[in-house]
Amino acid sequence: MILLRTHIGATLRASRIAQGRTLRDVAKSARVSLGYLSEVERGQKEASSELLHAITAALDISLGEVLSSVAHQVMSQEAPTLSVVDDAA
Amino acid sequence: MILLRTHIGATLRASRIAQGRTLRDVAKSARVSLGYLSEVERGQKEASSELLHAITAALDISLGEVLSSVAHQVMSQEAPTLSVVDDAA
Repeated sequence: MILLRTHIGATLRASRIAQGRTLRDVAKSARVSLGYLSEVERGQKEASSELLHAITAALDISLGEVLSSVAHQVMSQEAPTLSVVDDAA
Repeated sequence: MILLRTHIGATLRASRIAQGRTLRDVAKSARVSLGYLSEVERGQKEASSELLHAITAALDISLGEVLSSVAHQVMSQEAPTLSVVDDAA
């Protein structure tokens, strides 16, 4: 089963790592606990819409960008053979 | 504040209405309560990733499509003046 929180978490984590920032730094900036942010990033906890907003603001990324990235990840997982077909064409 | 659940709810509702289906029908198919589905559609309740999966399956739409639509809605709300600039150009 494709779970939204898995992909949102991975996308948030990738953004944080790309910025060279720590969980502690982003959690503090977003005013969430370090443990909560860590669980969200690992797809173990659903982020409420309000906290997702706070985390994206702390990372200075737009929610739309995050969702666009997540949409692409989910679509590629839903149709994993499409790229193979494209390569063979 | 742009809330993810508002846009997910609106997108699910639009898909259901486009199919001419009732809350009762989709709720039964997704095995969620009618009240829960109604609250999710109105953006009053966060859908867990598992129940979002069940609702999209009941609507026979892909999660990726839903998220792509939501991403576009959120991005247009995040940059509401862009289209005005485009129109003026």
